[in-house]
Amino acid sequence: MKLIIGNKNYSSWSLRAWLAARAAGQLFEEIRIPLFIEGSRERILQHSPSGKVPCLIDHGLTVWDSLAICEYLAEKSPGLWPADPAARAFARAISAEMHSGFPDLRQNMTMSIRKDYAGKGHTPAVDANIARIEAIWNDCRARFGAMANPAGPYLFGAFTIADAMYAPVCFRFKTYDVKPAGAAGEYLATMLAHPAMKEWEAAALVETESIPCEDLYG
Amino acid sequence: MKLIIGNKNYSSWSLRAWLAARAAGQLFEEIRIPLFIEGSRERILQHSPSGKVPCLIDHGLTVWDSLAICEYLAEKSPGLWPADPAARAFARAISAEMHSGFPDLRQNMTMSIRKDYAGKGHTPAVDANIARIEAIWNDCRARFGAMANPAGPYLFGAFTIADAMYAPVCFRFKTYDVKPAGAAGEYLATMLAHPAMKEWEAAALVETESIPCEDLYG
Repeated sequence: MKLIIGNKNYSSWSLRAWLAARAAGQLFEEIRIPLFIEGSRERILQHSPSGKVPCLIDHGLTVWDSLAICEYLAEKSPGLWPADPAARAFARAISAEMHSGFPDLRQNMTMSIRKDYAGKGHTPAVDANIARIEAIWNDCRARFGAMANPAGPYLFGAFTIADAMYAPVCFRFKTYDVKPAGAAGEYLATMLAHPAMKEWEAAALVETESIPCEDLYG
Repeated sequence: MKLIIGNKNYSSWSLRAWLAARAAGQLFEEIRIPLFIEGSRERILQHSPSGKVPCLIDHGLTVWDSLAICEYLAEKSPGLWPADPAARAFARAISAEMHSGFPDLRQNMTMSIRKDYAGKGHTPAVDANIARIEAIWNDCRARFGAMANPAGPYLFGAFTIADAMYAPVCFRFKTYDVKPAGAAGEYLATMLAHPAMKEWEAAALVETESIPCEDLYG
């Protein structure tokens, strides 16, 4: 199995698929293609028909898009979604809401793990996105987190695809110094301490490429 | 089962979930909430925690977001995804690509079924989106359409969630007079003749509300 990803510092979509593959316990070869430099698009298109990362290749089968990759992995490792049907439907709803939503947060608080942009990026629309995310995290922890079997500190107890989908938001909250209160804040700390998140972060910190949108906040 | 949707003329996301629910053979009550008028948001929030349509309510369980609703329905009606694992992975990839992508097409060729905007909305980025969609349709028809069991005229043979995800594009291509050649063009005609598509279209034509972005092309 091969996973094609972008820069670890910037590529929020790559992080989601990479975490899900790790959580699935899959051994995979990692092909990192730095984004927005000469030849990036051509290199990605050699693997991914959409021209975007991430892209998974498994025994000649190509699966692209973070959420489709997660669903593919979940068919191999059913524990990637909550076992309870109602919890699973809820997990898919918040994962899909992240997949197609929160445009203001994504545009104004781009993921750049090695930066400190404390206090930057806020607009009323961004703050509404943040409030919605905090409500989702609190709601999940209250409804499913503690009661899940097995119990655990993630949105649905054990780590699931829903956590992978919100993982880039966790790095953004650290970079932009967004501090949720209560259960959402505890969840953020738990995610930032996850061994795979620490591993990804360490790799991002030693990357050297930068991309044009890095200029957003200097 | 209840499905909360927006205006049939405008709400592309609602159309996707509605078609999937029809394809699943589910009986459902339809709650139509016209968008972008006074009180719309409050009315939607009474059902949908994201404040968006569509939203499905099944025996007290709330599932929002078009793609999450489709996955929920597919667990009840497995035929909604292709049976073959490789075809299913491909179907999820193109569905997710639609779910989070094609921003230029969505912004410049908004769905407005009762309008004739022939020739409008084109930009280089929109045309690149259109070319990618045509490539997807041609690729699906060549790889999966004819060989599927059961065979059929849709992207993966029989009607699946992937067709529901691309259904609003079909109405857009009609409104903006985009005419794909070859297999993609045949697929477009097949989709526009689908009984559920005709039923949705007829309802859209007799709706009377209009929304602000209708001003885009007068």
